[in-house]
Parts: sequence; C-alpha cells; structure tokens
Amino acid sequence: MKIALDVLGGDNAPMANINGALNYLKENDNEIILVGNENILNSELKKHSNFSQRIHVIHASEKIEMNERSTRIFKDKPNSSLVKSIELVKNNHADAIVSAGNTGALLTTSLFLIGKIPGIKRPALAPLIPTKNSNFILCDVGANANSKPEHLIQFALMATAYMQHLENRRNPKVALLNIGQEKNKGNELTTSTYPLLEKNLENFIGNIESRNLLDDKADVIICDGFTGNIVLKLTEGIIAHLLNWIQEIYHDHSHDAIASPEFLSILKEIQNSLDPEEYGATPLLGINGIVMKCHGSTTERGIKNSLIAAEKAVEQKLITNISNLLNEHEMFI
Amino acid sequence: MKIALDVLGGDNAPMANINGALNYLKENDNEIILVGNENILNSELKKHSNFSQRIHVIHASEKIEMNERSTRIFKDKPNSSLVKSIELVKNNHADAIVSAGNTGALLTTSLFLIGKIPGIKRPALAPLIPTKNSNFILCDVGANANSKPEHLIQFALMATAYMQHLENRRNPKVALLNIGQEKNKGNELTTSTYPLLEKNLENFIGNIESRNLLDDKADVIICDGFTGNIVLKLTEGIIAHLLNWIQEIYHDHSHDAIASPEFLSILKEIQNSLDPEEYGATPLLGINGIVMKCHGSTTERGIKNSLIAAEKAVEQKLITNISNLLNEHEMFI
Repeated sequence: MKIALDVLGGDNAPMANINGALNYLKENDNEIILVGNENILNSELKKHSNFSQRIHVIHASEKIEMNERSTRIFKDKPNSSLVKSIELVKNNHADAIVSAGNTGALLTTSLFLIGKIPGIKRPALAPLIPTKNSNFILCDVGANANSKPEHLIQFALMATAYMQHLENRRNPKVALLNIGQEKNKGNELTTSTYPLLEKNLENFIGNIESRNLLDDKADVIICDGFTGNIVLKLTEGIIAHLLNWIQEIYHDHSHDAIASPEFLSILKEIQNSLDPEEYGATPLLGINGIVMKCHGSTTERGIKNSLIAAEKAVEQKLITNISNLLNEHEMFI
Repeated sequence: MKIALDVLGGDNAPMANINGALNYLKENDNEIILVGNENILNSELKKHSNFSQRIHVIHASEKIEMNERSTRIFKDKPNSSLVKSIELVKNNHADAIVSAGNTGALLTTSLFLIGKIPGIKRPALAPLIPTKNSNFILCDVGANANSKPEHLIQFALMATAYMQHLENRRNPKVALLNIGQEKNKGNELTTSTYPLLEKNLENFIGNIESRNLLDDKADVIICDGFTGNIVLKLTEGIIAHLLNWIQEIYHDHSHDAIASPEFLSILKEIQNSLDPEEYGATPLLGINGIVMKCHGSTTERGIKNSLIAAEKAVEQKLITNISNLLNEHEMFI
C-alpha cells in the first residue's frame, strides 16, 4: 500500500509531517509518498536511509495557506503539495492521501480531481468526538454551509458506514441534532428531515438536544454543516476555556507553588482523552477515494495516527462500504 | 411597583416561588401579586403577615406542564397561572411578570395578549451568559426556529438596548455568530445578514466563531434561534459533563476519602460564576411589556433575583429604550 502525505500542510509542517511519516514506517511495511520541497525532504531522508526503499519524494514548490480561498486552488496552484498529493490518488499512484492543510482547498480539489462516490450529492466531514466514557461521530461539521433534507439522509448513511468501519459498532444509533426531543420540534430543515429518517433508517433513534451531545445516547449525530461547525468549535472552545479557568483558580487558591499530583493527573487525563491526535485524521466522506484530513495543529503523533487511519480505510474498503450502504437505500441516491 | 409572579411555573414551584417572593419583599417596598392556588398561598402567607399589605393573591386553578404544546394555551387553559399572570400586565394591573414556566407558552401567550413593540417583527430570547472574566448576551436562543436577515438585525438592536440596560455598557460590541471570520463565510442567512449589519450598525464588529464565544470579544452575539438554542444547551451540557468528569477522576486518583479544600474551592468557584440564578430571569425581548423568563429549574434565590431584574427593567424603562433604539434605525422597522 502507498499513502501520499501532504508535507507542506498544517501548522507544524514540514517537520511534524516528516517525523510522523518516519515513525509510521517503523511499525509496518507500507510505502509513503512525501509531497513537498525536495531539497528539504532529501536532506532529512539522508539520515534515515533504512527506509529509502519505502519512501518516495515528489517535489511540490507551492504551499497553500490556511485561510486561502479554496475555489480555484487546483487551477491557481497546480504545483502545490495539496494538489499534487490528491493527483496521486486520482491517478492511482497512491491508495490514500493524508493532509493537515486547508480543509476547503482539500475538499474542493478532491471534488474536482477525484469526484464523488456515485449517487452522493454532497461530501461531508464527520469527526469522531470523544466523551467521558465513549465517543460519537458528528456529521456534517462544515463541508457544506447550507444543507437540505436529502443531504442529511446521505450524511446519516455515510456516517453509519464510517462508524461501523471505525469502531466496528454494528447498527450504530443515529440521532438528529435538534432543539427539542419531540418530532415536531425544530427549524424547517430538521422538521422536514425527521420523517425521512424515521421512515427509511432502521437505526434512527430520534432527535437529540445539544445538552445531551456528550451523554453517549447516540453513535452518530447528524446536522447541517453550519450547525455542526458551530458545535465542533464551541466544544473545543469551552473545554479549553474551562481547563484554563480551573488552572488559574487552582494557582490562586493553592498554598503550594507546585500543583498537587492529583490535580495534575486530572487535567492530564482529561486532556489525553479529548486529544484529537489520538484518533488521527477524518476522511472526507463522499469523495470517491480515501482523502484524510488532520487537524491543522497536528503534531508528528497526529500524522502517524492519521497514516494508520488511512491504512485502515484502504484495507477495510471504506469507500465500497459507503457505496454499498447507499445502494441498499437507493431512494436516496 | 407591582410585579406578578407565576407561582405554579418551574420545577420547584410553588414553594421556591413563594419563598423567593418573600425574600424579595424583605429588601424593598414593592408589591407582589402571587398567581397560583389560593388555598396553598393563603396558608403559606399566614406565616408572613408583616407583608400582608404588599402581597396580593390571584387564584389560578390550572398549571401548564413544561412540555405542553404552547400554541393554544391561552384558549385551552385560560385559568392557568401563566395566562392569568400575563393578563395582569396586559390590563395594567401589574408592571411586569416573572415566570419559570414553559417558555413556548409564555412567549405565545405574551404575543397574543400583550403583543409586540411597534415595528418589531419577531420577539427573541437573549440570556446573559457568564464567562471566566465577564459575560455576553446571546440572541436569539430559541424564541424562533427559523430566522431571516431582517429578524437578526432587529435582534441586534434589541440586544444592544438590553445590554446597555443590564450592564450599563455603552455601545456594546455586536458580533454575528458564524463559521468563519471572513465576511464571505457562512450559510445563506449569515452571508445575507453580514452586509446589513456592517452598513447599519455602528457597533458591529464582524463575525465571531464559536470557539471564541467565551473569550470576551463581543458584548452581544447574534444568531438565529435554532443555532442559539443549540449553543446555549451545548454550553450547559459540556460544562456539566466536564465538571462531573473532573470529580470522577479526582476520586479515582485521590488517596484521601475527602477531597482537598483546593479542589473543592475550584469547583465551587466555577459553579458559582456560571450559575444562571445569579442573574435571574431574561426578558422576552420585543414583547410590549416586561415579561421575564427564569430557568425552569430555578430555586428561590433565582426567583428573588428575577424579581430584582424585573424591577430594574420597569424602573429603567427597558421597553421604551428598545423602542427608541429601533426608531433610530427606522429602516429596519
């Protein structure tokens, strides 16, 4: 198996990306195609000649910035590491691509170069979100700003297939994020989507309110991309705010200059459990190839785990599984 | 000043409501109209004859449940404490009403009986949300499930007037909740609303992402009621989840059976700061009278603080202030 890695994408590129790839190669027999500045890459790889048979370098001279407008990237920056990595999957020179770069650019370029799984109307982003005792998938978190009921049904199907793949959870419970538990509650989108989910999705369990999001009531939670993006970033923001607050108060109250072991272990344990790096990248669901997006601030550990996630998606045929589940619900194609 | 209190509304009714009212009366010279079961009320009030000149009782035989459909409440349950309390404001027998009952019923009945401030298209709910160092108003959090740009502009104006009233903050900074900071980011609603806010609201500072919601960047944050309701309940849910998690881990790690004073003081300080009871009730902005909604789980402390908030809204002429600010921006009426 060959996995392409966008070496210039992400806040800690290129070194976190290169080191993540090297750490990945230590633990298996796959091959990595590093797409980035060849001078830097060749100079780094000299130190690791034991992997020379399994590392390939493709030169890319352009980098895509995190806030760059994504719509014309594949025309305006054809020599960027992001575009060149995706081309490798398009041309079957790589089985998957991992990138920590600009999400919009990754999505738009993947749509243009690789295209969608037949029947899929809109791709979606579906990260796994950890909770105190378990985790769940939230879909969509911003691949789309505006969604329609038929999109949400497809998000539910794609995320179901992905949850089965990821956690081997059979018939994962799917809930619709809404502002009330009753069927008739919600805005135009959710009130139109509810009856469609209820009628056609055997694993649909009804509405879920955001106050119960982390209570392990559902395995997959569906919403439009605007709402999902608000929820995802708010969750990150509140947790950071609260942990920071706790540390400030602790230092105000504590008589010791150094925090107690109990206190430090609490913060450490929570931070570890919530660490998105643990799970690596999220696939762009609906793209007709394995395109994995890591968090922009990912470190080498996140890159390594993302490569492992990509490998698993290829081995377990994630695209075929999504396609099959879609065909079983052909009225939504 | 006379304030009506819906004695049967809320999870802790009637005793929390009665005791909250009594505690309020100890500290000022106003009058309270208690609307509820007259047998219970008269029996309780016997113990507090010193307030007999300032407490009035109106009998209400029906209670509205928290999940009751709200659309026909004023026709189906005319003898409910909620409807009768609102009628007191409508008929100028009370200057304000406080209720911890069903939000939808309170809103629908207030709209029907009291009506909107002239020019207002939609009422809105705008709670004050505490942060580590300050607070902000989020508007709307669910008075409306579907909103249009012209509604959001009016929410911004009403919430501006309310923030000036509440915290005496001149020219409060108004931000639009969105999924990116750039002007062109967002869904159909936010991309249409942004230019209107930019052109017409001198205190508009642009988009805010949800990850920065608690970072004190804005005094007023505007969104549609669906998104606001998701945000409000998610914020409550995550904070409860995290504080609970911290306690569990602490007990797993701690060698002592009893938690350390430092640890307990951290949790206490955060819980106190975030306590919605501290701020009391939120007015239904846009209704042409002071209708204050408390959290359903409010205790007697929350009821007392809500009565104080109602008193302030009457004294400082909140309705007139909203109306004046609206007239200064007459293109949005």
